[in-house]
Amino acid sequence: MGNHPPHHEHIDEQMMKVEVNLDDTPGEWLGYVMELLLEAGANDVFYTPIYMKKNRPGVLLQLLCSRKKLEQMKEILFRETTTLGVRYYPLTVHRLERRFREVQTDWGTVAVKEGIHRGQVVQRAPEFEQCKAIAKANGVPLKKVYEQVWKQLNEKLEEN
Amino acid sequence: MGNHPPHHEHIDEQMMKVEVNLDDTPGEWLGYVMELLLEAGANDVFYTPIYMKKNRPGVLLQLLCSRKKLEQMKEILFRETTTLGVRYYPLTVHRLERRFREVQTDWGTVAVKEGIHRGQVVQRAPEFEQCKAIAKANGVPLKKVYEQVWKQLNEKLEEN
Amino acid sequence: MGNHPPHHEHIDEQMMKVEVNLDDTPGEWLGYVMELLLEAGANDVFYTPIYMKKNRPGVLLQLLCSRKKLEQMKEILFRETTTLGVRYYPLTVHRLERRFREVQTDWGTVAVKEGIHRGQVVQRAPEFEQCKAIAKANGVPLKKVYEQVWKQLNEKLEEN
Amino acid sequence: MGNHPPHHEHIDEQMMKVEVNLDDTPGEWLGYVMELLLEAGANDVFYTPIYMKKNRPGVLLQLLCSRKKLEQMKEILFRETTTLGVRYYPLTVHRLERRFREVQTDWGTVAVKEGIHRGQVVQRAPEFEQCKAIAKANGVPLKKVYEQVWKQLNEKLEEN
Amino acid sequence: MGNHPPHHEHIDEQMMKVEVNLDDTPGEWLGYVMELLLEAGANDVFYTPIYMKKNRPGVLLQLLCSRKKLEQMKEILFRETTTLGVRYYPLTVHRLERRFREVQTDWGTVAVKEGIHRGQVVQRAPEFEQCKAIAKANGVPLKKVYEQVWKQLNEKLEEN
Amino acid sequence: MGNHPPHHEHIDEQMMKVEVNLDDTPGEWLGYVMELLLEAGANDVFYTPIYMKKNRPGVLLQLLCSRKKLEQMKEILFRETTTLGVRYYPLTVHRLERRFREVQTDWGTVAVKEGIHRGQVVQRAPEFEQCKAIAKANGVPLKKVYEQVWKQLNEKLEEN
Repeated sequence: MGNHPPHHEHIDEQMMKVEVNLDDTPGEWLGYVMELLLEAGANDVFYTPIYMKKNRPGVLLQLLCSRKKLEQMKEILFRETTTLGVRYYPLTVHRLERRFREVQTDWGTVAVKEGIHRGQVVQRAPEFEQCKAIAKANGVPLKKVYEQVWKQLNEKLEEN
Repeated sequence: MGNHPPHHEHIDEQMMKVEVNLDDTPGEWLGYVMELLLEAGANDVFYTPIYMKKNRPGVLLQLLCSRKKLEQMKEILFRETTTLGVRYYPLTVHRLERRFREVQTDWGTVAVKEGIHRGQVVQRAPEFEQCKAIAKANGVPLKKVYEQVWKQLNEKLEEN
Repeated sequence: MGNHPPHHEHIDEQMMKVEVNLDDTPGEWLGYVMELLLEAGANDVFYTPIYMKKNRPGVLLQLLCSRKKLEQMKEILFRETTTLGVRYYPLTVHRLERRFREVQTDWGTVAVKEGIHRGQVVQRAPEFEQCKAIAKANGVPLKKVYEQVWKQLNEKLEEN
Repeated sequence: MGNHPPHHEHIDEQMMKVEVNLDDTPGEWLGYVMELLLEAGANDVFYTPIYMKKNRPGVLLQLLCSRKKLEQMKEILFRETTTLGVRYYPLTVHRLERRFREVQTDWGTVAVKEGIHRGQVVQRAPEFEQCKAIAKANGVPLKKVYEQVWKQLNEKLEEN
Repeated sequence: MGNHPPHHEHIDEQMMKVEVNLDDTPGEWLGYVMELLLEAGANDVFYTPIYMKKNRPGVLLQLLCSRKKLEQMKEILFRETTTLGVRYYPLTVHRLERRFREVQTDWGTVAVKEGIHRGQVVQRAPEFEQCKAIAKANGVPLKKVYEQVWKQLNEKLEEN
Repeated sequence: MGNHPPHHEHIDEQMMKVEVNLDDTPGEWLGYVMELLLEAGANDVFYTPIYMKKNRPGVLLQLLCSRKKLEQMKEILFRETTTLGVRYYPLTVHRLERRFREVQTDWGTVAVKEGIHRGQVVQRAPEFEQCKAIAKANGVPLKKVYEQVWKQLNEKLEEN
C-alpha cells in the first residue's frame, strides 16, 4: 500500500476496494493497466488467477484507492480493459506510522522504511530499488546487499 | 457480469458478493455447482485457488447476485457443496450501457456487444458463442473470425 | 469456518474479513503465521496467490474473525508479517446448525459433523482428524475409512 | 487421462507432454482451445496460472498425448492460439486396468469406473455425467446421488 | 520465447527446462531474478504459485534456455535465490518462422511480428512496446492502438 | 529438496518427477497425501492449482524422488488419491554441498544450513523449526529470531 507521504499511525475509513473480472483482456495489456492505475494514484493493484465459466482462465483485478480517486480509477478500467462493469465496496485501512532511517553498506547508503505500531518499531524494510541499484552497479547478489543492511540495522538497535 | 437485459449506464447499489471456502468438495462437482448458480440467476460465479490450513489446496467460490437472489443462492450452496457456512457483503456495481450491433463476415452475421460510457463506445466485444459456432461450422480458426469482425467494426467506425 | 461451539442455525452480523498483501514475507514464515492466527481465535485463515507490481509473486492473506477479535488479529499481523497496513470490512455469515453423531467402522468410532438447514440435514462430514488417525494406526488408505463411514451413514438414514 | 478404451494395467512409454505459455490469448478463447484439443484426441488438457515478464498474468497450457498425435496437437496450437513456439518432452504413464460395473440408485443406473492395480480394486469413481443427469432430472442434489452410489458400492463389496 | 534473431521454422533439440521451488525467497526479490535471467539469455522465465509442505505458499520458478546457457542460469539461481538445488531436463521446441512487417496507424508505425507455419502466416502480433509507447505519447487507450493495427493488417491481407 | 544426509556438491542423474492431475480428490485428503509421500522418502511434494475440463478447479500433484523410490510413490498415489494414471519423467538435480553451523541468539542456539557452490558459501538458511520453537517458547515474533540469527552470521563472516 504505497504512494503515501510519511504519516502517523492512523485508521483510514475513506478507502475503496475496486474489482473487475477479466476473461477477454490479453495478459499482455494487463501489465500496462497496472502501471496506469498506479501512476494515477491507486494505493495498490494486484491480479489473482480465477476460473470463469466455459473453462476460461481469467484474471481478477483488485485495486485499493481513496474514495476521491474512485471515478478516475473507473475511467481507466473502462477505457483500458474490456470490462462492462466495475464493482466496489468500502473498507478500512489501519496504517502504521512510517519513518525512514539510513544505513551504510560497503557500497553506499540504503534507506530503510520503518513501520511503527503504538510507538514501537515492528517493521523494517530496506528500500528495494536502492538495494537493487547497488546490486547491479557492484555486481553483487541482491541478497548480500540485504544481509549487510540487516546486520547494520541490528547493530544500531543494540546501541539504543 | 451477464444475464442482464440491455440497459442504460447505471450504478446498482443492490448487489451482493457471496463467498464460500471449500476444502472437501471434489473439483468435479464444482463445474456443476457453477452451472446451477448461473442458471438460477447469479450475475457471475468464479473460483480462486486458495491455501487452507493443514496443507489443503482449497477453492474459494465467489458469486455476484442481486440482494433478492441471495436466499436462493444460499440454498444452492448449502445443498450442493459441503460448506457449513456462507458469507456475504454488499457492493456497488457500475454497469455500462449495453447495445448490440451486427457485423457481416464471410461466414455469416455476428453480434457485437458494445459498452457505452457517458455516451461513448468504450468496449466492443464480438459474441463469443456466435464466433465459435462460425469457426466450428466452417473449419476456420476462431482467431480468424475475430479478426474479420474487428476489421468490419473498424470500418464502420470510420464511416461515422 | 471452525472454532465454534455447537450452535443453532443463525446469521452472524458481527464478523470481519481482514486482508493483507505480502510481497516480502518468506513463504516459510506464513505457515507459522496461519497457525498463530488460528490459535488466537480466527475463524478461518487462507492464502491466495497474487501478482503484484514489479513482477512480484505475492500472497494475499485473508482471515475471518469476530469484531471483538479484530485488534488481536491486527497485533499478530503487524508483529509477525512484514506489512505496513492491514485492511478490513464487515461481512455477514450464515451458519448452519451443527450436530455430531457417531458411526462405527471396523477400526473404531468416527464422529460425523452434520450441518442442518431449516431442520434438514444438508451436510455430513466425517471428522478428518479421526479418519486420519484410524488410517495411520491401521495402515489402511484414508479413502477406505471415508467409504466405510459413508456407508454406515447411509444405512442409518434409511432406518429413520 | 481419458479417451481410452477399457484396458489392462500397463506402462505406456509413448506419451508426450506438450506445453505453451500464453500471455496474449484472451481467456475466452482458451475454453474453446481445450475443447478442440480434447476432441482431436488429447488425453488431457489443463491450464495453470503463471506470472510472466512485464507484470503479465499468463496461462501455461499443458497437454498429454501419444507421440502419434503430436503433429495434430501442434497444428491446433499454432492455428488457434497466439503462440510462436511449442515445446514438448516424452514421459511415461502408468495406467491402471479399468473396468465398469453398474449400480442401481433410486433414480436409475449409474456406471462406476474401477481402477485395478495388481489385481486389486483401488479406485471406484461413479461416472460424473450420469450422476449429473440424474441430479438434474430428479431435482436432487448431486451429492445425494453420489452418496447413494457409494452406499451400494460398499454393500456389493461386502457380499464378495 | 523471446531473444531470438529472425529465423526459419525449425525444431530445436538443444533446449532445457530448469526448475526451482522457492519457499523462503521474498517475492520482492523474484522480480529482479527474472530480470537477471532474461538479461543473461534465458528464452523465457515464469513463476507458478505452488503449495509446499507446512502450509507454505511457495513459487515454482521455471525457465527455458539453450543447453549452452545452462551453467550460467544455474550460477544466477544459486547466487540470487535461496535454493540449495536446481533441477532440469531436456525438451524440444518447435519454433515458427518469424518475420516482421510494418503497419501505419494514425499515430505512427508499428511493427507486427508474424509467425509462419509451413509457409502460411498463422500468427500476427503487434509489437507490444511500440503500441504502448504510442498509447502513452498520444493519450489514447492501448486497445484503440491495437484495433487500428488489426484493421490495417486485415486490409493488407485482402490485397494479396 | 530435503531428506538428504550432508553431502558434497554433486549432479544427481537418478531423479524422477512424478505428476498426477486430481479433480475428484477432496483437498482435505491432499494434506495427508503430502505427509505420506514425504514420510516415504519423496524429496519434495507440491501442489499447483490447475483448470481442468468441464470447469473443474483441480490440483496438479508433483513430486521429486529417486528412481529407486518410484514404485513406492506410485503405490501411495494409487492407494491414497483417486487417480487412474500416474506419469513421470527423469530429470537431473544439481545439489549444493550442505554444511551446518551454529549461531547463538539471546534465546538459545540455532543451526544454520549453508549451501556451498564451488567452495563458496552462497546460501545460509536458519533452520525454520528451531527458530519457530524459540519464537513460541519465548513469545517473540519469528522475524526477530531470524533478524538476530542474520546478525550473528554476518559478524562471523567478517571475523573470517
